[in-house]
Amino acid sequence: MSDFRPDERLARDSDLLTKIGLCELRLMKDSRWPWLVLVPQRPDVSEIFDLTPLDQTMLTFETVLVSEALKTVTGATKINIGALGNIVRQLHVHIIARSEGDPNWPGPVWGYGTAEPRSADETKAFAAKLLDALAP
Amino acid sequence: MSDFRPDERLARDSDLLTKIGLCELRLMKDSRWPWLVLVPQRPDVSEIFDLTPLDQTMLTFETVLVSEALKTVTGATKINIGALGNIVRQLHVHIIARSEGDPNWPGPVWGYGTAEPRSADETKAFAAKLLDALAP
Repeated sequence: MSDFRPDERLARDSDLLTKIGLCELRLMKDSRWPWLVLVPQRPDVSEIFDLTPLDQTMLTFETVLVSEALKTVTGATKINIGALGNIVRQLHVHIIARSEGDPNWPGPVWGYGTAEPRSADETKAFAAKLLDALAP
Repeated sequence: MSDFRPDERLARDSDLLTKIGLCELRLMKDSRWPWLVLVPQRPDVSEIFDLTPLDQTMLTFETVLVSEALKTVTGATKINIGALGNIVRQLHVHIIARSEGDPNWPGPVWGYGTAEPRSADETKAFAAKLLDALAP
């Protein structure tokens, strides 16, 4: 874990909420959707199959944990999960709460329009709710 | 598994290549990208967190297996993995081989343009190569 650093673009476009076992949990600076990103704290990994089998299982476990918390907090119609990495090659998993009628519904969020940042207060309030739902 | 049936739209838009432990492995009828779909053979599941923990791990294992085979066969720049389900609610995981300059690169494939079907021969040839790469 010592050589891990979040990709510069990921770090610029999102706020660190917490660290779970394997991953950094980050919130995208875009209020159009509740949009989280898990970043495994491993250097030089860009595909899920680059992770060890144990880390793959950890990533699945953390993805499920965060998806359920996000569903609870937002009441979303559908959780979208994606690992694309065509632009930022460092492995990261998007977890997005989608609801009917949201921007670009039922299409994907990636590459759509322009981010609309939250205020510091909105970010804080959302983070508090989510971390509360994640707590055991 | 007895109550499982692939969603009608998934069945119409893709060809069944094989069944792995948990999932049907299907090939989208769209030659613009090498585009596979894993469908867990479980009824009434739409989110990954609806699966049992064992099935979640199986799905991860099969996703990794298929991703590696697809990378081997295509030499793609990046494998894109996604579970969206905004249109088809039955849980399914997309595994897509992306290369620089392909249609909509570096954007996502979902919702982009119109599918361009393969010929039966092309489908057969691709399936044979992929199944060969999947074989132990």
